[in-house]
Amino acid sequence: MAAMASLFLNSPTTPSSHPFPKSNRINFSTPSFISYNQNSNSKSKKLIGKPIRVTCGLIEPDGGKLVQLVVPESDRDVKRKEANGLPQIKLSRIDLEWVHVLSEGWASPLTGFMRESEFLQTLHFNSLRLGDGSVVNMSLPIVLDIDDAQKNRISSSTAVALIDSNDDPVAILNNIGDTVLILRGWCQPAISIEIYKHNKEERIARTWGTTAPGLPYAEEAITGAGDWLIGGDLEVIQPIKYHDGLDRYRLSPSELREEFSKRNADAVFAFQLRNPVHNGHALLMTDTRRRLLEMGYKNPVLLLHPLGGFTKADDVPLAWRMKQHQKVLEDGVLDPENTVVSIFPSPMHYAGPTEVQWHAKARINAGANFYIVGRDPAGMGHPVEKRDLYDADHGKKVLSMAPGLERLNILPFKVAAYDKTQQKMEFFDPSRPQDFVFISGTKMRTLAKNKESPPDGFMCPGGWEVLVQYYESLAANDSGRVPEPIPA
Amino acid sequence: MAAMASLFLNSPTTPSSHPFPKSNRINFSTPSFISYNQNSNSKSKKLIGKPIRVTCGLIEPDGGKLVQLVVPESDRDVKRKEANGLPQIKLSRIDLEWVHVLSEGWASPLTGFMRESEFLQTLHFNSLRLGDGSVVNMSLPIVLDIDDAQKNRISSSTAVALIDSNDDPVAILNNIGDTVLILRGWCQPAISIEIYKHNKEERIARTWGTTAPGLPYAEEAITGAGDWLIGGDLEVIQPIKYHDGLDRYRLSPSELREEFSKRNADAVFAFQLRNPVHNGHALLMTDTRRRLLEMGYKNPVLLLHPLGGFTKADDVPLAWRMKQHQKVLEDGVLDPENTVVSIFPSPMHYAGPTEVQWHAKARINAGANFYIVGRDPAGMGHPVEKRDLYDADHGKKVLSMAPGLERLNILPFKVAAYDKTQQKMEFFDPSRPQDFVFISGTKMRTLAKNKESPPDGFMCPGGWEVLVQYYESLAANDSGRVPEPIPA
Repeated sequence: MAAMASLFLNSPTTPSSHPFPKSNRINFSTPSFISYNQNSNSKSKKLIGKPIRVTCGLIEPDGGKLVQLVVPESDRDVKRKEANGLPQIKLSRIDLEWVHVLSEGWASPLTGFMRESEFLQTLHFNSLRLGDGSVVNMSLPIVLDIDDAQKNRISSSTAVALIDSNDDPVAILNNIGDTVLILRGWCQPAISIEIYKHNKEERIARTWGTTAPGLPYAEEAITGAGDWLIGGDLEVIQPIKYHDGLDRYRLSPSELREEFSKRNADAVFAFQLRNPVHNGHALLMTDTRRRLLEMGYKNPVLLLHPLGGFTKADDVPLAWRMKQHQKVLEDGVLDPENTVVSIFPSPMHYAGPTEVQWHAKARINAGANFYIVGRDPAGMGHPVEKRDLYDADHGKKVLSMAPGLERLNILPFKVAAYDKTQQKMEFFDPSRPQDFVFISGTKMRTLAKNKESPPDGFMCPGGWEVLVQYYESLAANDSGRVPEPIPA
Repeated sequence: MAAMASLFLNSPTTPSSHPFPKSNRINFSTPSFISYNQNSNSKSKKLIGKPIRVTCGLIEPDGGKLVQLVVPESDRDVKRKEANGLPQIKLSRIDLEWVHVLSEGWASPLTGFMRESEFLQTLHFNSLRLGDGSVVNMSLPIVLDIDDAQKNRISSSTAVALIDSNDDPVAILNNIGDTVLILRGWCQPAISIEIYKHNKEERIARTWGTTAPGLPYAEEAITGAGDWLIGGDLEVIQPIKYHDGLDRYRLSPSELREEFSKRNADAVFAFQLRNPVHNGHALLMTDTRRRLLEMGYKNPVLLLHPLGGFTKADDVPLAWRMKQHQKVLEDGVLDPENTVVSIFPSPMHYAGPTEVQWHAKARINAGANFYIVGRDPAGMGHPVEKRDLYDADHGKKVLSMAPGLERLNILPFKVAAYDKTQQKMEFFDPSRPQDFVFISGTKMRTLAKNKESPPDGFMCPGGWEVLVQYYESLAANDSGRVPEPIPA
């Protein structure tokens, strides 16, 4: 997997006279805040059709400031000691992924696990109203559950320690006084951590639009969870790492903004994915860049952003996907010069139109002002009935109307299919449907499992080979369970 | 029931020098638009603590203009003929109630049954974004379902006729070109009626936060409904009437605004109810008026606003409730001089925090700028589990945070209980809990059914007598089914 570094860093050494100098090295050292212009998006909108040279200015994060919750290095020992004296909550893998998400500001302006007012606004309005009256999008509850025993143990403590599976302290949940939300009427600043009821049925119904058994995230993280939620502000003791060989590809929003600034990107278009990249995706991404250049942008950069958190058992695991993405770039299907590949640390809900808002909102915080949305984003089959859980068009419709996402340019996905006459992936032409073959995810998986080849031009050969290897590794495993892939 | 007119009209003949002249007759003739000041609410907020004489100015309706969809009398014959030539949809009782609601502008700025963009925004955001970027609250889907056969019959027709149970045309659903909503991106004005999928499971889950069988509205109007929804603008052929002896008490938002203006109300506080009024309610309403006077308002008027549409089988039917409310006013528990009793024509969803927003929003359109919210508004027991469906505090919390309701002043309900030491309903005093008895709705119904008396001071004797009569009439009915009460 070491070779993969070139994937991100494969920029030519650029002479200083180049109009859009690019870094030839991503700075992985100390993350720092990026200085960027305010209202950069309104500017970019005005730009449409008017080619003007623009100095680098990235879209402002939600709430105006990128939240970062990792305490300074000099404070870590003190915080570890403090954590050792507090009531403790052990984090699941998904909890840890959410601490990661929160710690780096993907959910800005959230400063910790949701208190009840934030939880309710998320469930009912998919958005949060800030103290100044402005609204940011927030469609998924980011919450931490505890059970009765934990609640009793916490009692009247004003802070708790969150510990990992090795019992090492990860963060302190407390109140740092920087209240994001002010309610009307009886409302006052949050003054403490808050423990409130976890109505699981209501949470599932309002998030997924169904309560059918078999929703992967609900089964993994909600159904068996505690009956209480605990909210408060986080102080994260050190950056979250997974030690799986992929940590260096997990760029924070701050690091991504720094990279986009170094590249002098004047548009950043994000492509969320949790599947192998085929040439239809590549066509779409290339075509998006072409359209942005036509609009007058000089240096649109693609954020190819595979989701790295919890996924369901039959999805291709992250490490194999990263290998596949690497091959796609090596094979020249995408241009490394204007592509940044990084891992989005969020767990996956498979909550369709509700979740796609989260996917888009988080990318604003990472500096993206364009978001590509496909057919049935974050969708899946209904867990019980023989149909898709969501209408395939609802994701893009809901996204285009979502409160708090007005600043983001939504780019609906054009449908690509295999064009038999050209033997390559092309945008579907409804005037000659007979020439096109749609290759579904299921079909793709079946071919790879059977070591059959897809039609020429469906996916680059190197990328396809990775998929075949993955399914071979699965078959080699007698139990049929998904093995943990070995990072290269 | 004829005596009931006095309930609304019981104003003394007022000399013209009276500082707050009141009409001694509600004008039931031609409803007309009321002229009122814009931004009256921001003004009233500034007023708090500063007693200033204010000329009449009611809160602006959502969208700036009260929608009224009944066609002018001169056009009715033409519209009836037009309706006779169109594909027809027969309306259920609940459908008719929604036509009523829409026709009078309770749901302003909606001009008809929701199209898909409105339906999706309602389900996901409980609000609608208007063309000018402003947001209005809209938490319940107001939709019309059709089945496959009806869809086929409508085919490519650009308008359909809605007919009542006697096959008389009620309204035409078409496109009148006055599009309320503009979506971003691929969005264009609505150009036609729109037929789209009715995902009942998702609608129920997102509206109620559960899909458990036994939700009264869902059982009545959704589970067995068609698989399609049809949206478009309404032209209503004549005012909706039920001919049940209560029509004259169904004042439209326009008529209510006219009444409030005539009374020179400078604050209107709405009290939604679907139960008999006891002295705890009365205490609350009287106390609210006292608080508003203290704030500097000169003439706060109470809108006592029983819900008149569909209710569940074990609720007290509308006609009996109206009788009971009449007794309460006759017994002097509430002051008719600053009280307007009228019927709110909406059907009841029992959807708790989601529905209370609708109850509040509709009252803005009727001119109310204060809304009293109680414990567990629009709540009920979970249909399957032994618990309340909603957290009792969520209604008021959600209401206070709801998008589009920022202009409305939310008045949380203080808890009243029977104070044994004073032998009357009083606000609960937590310093002496032993002195208070909470009389639940179930307890009240059990007492009335058994012809037992509640403690003195719980409800005025005349009002209690109506309740006892109602349960007698139920018992007299062998089948145990709720009989249709005979209007007095």
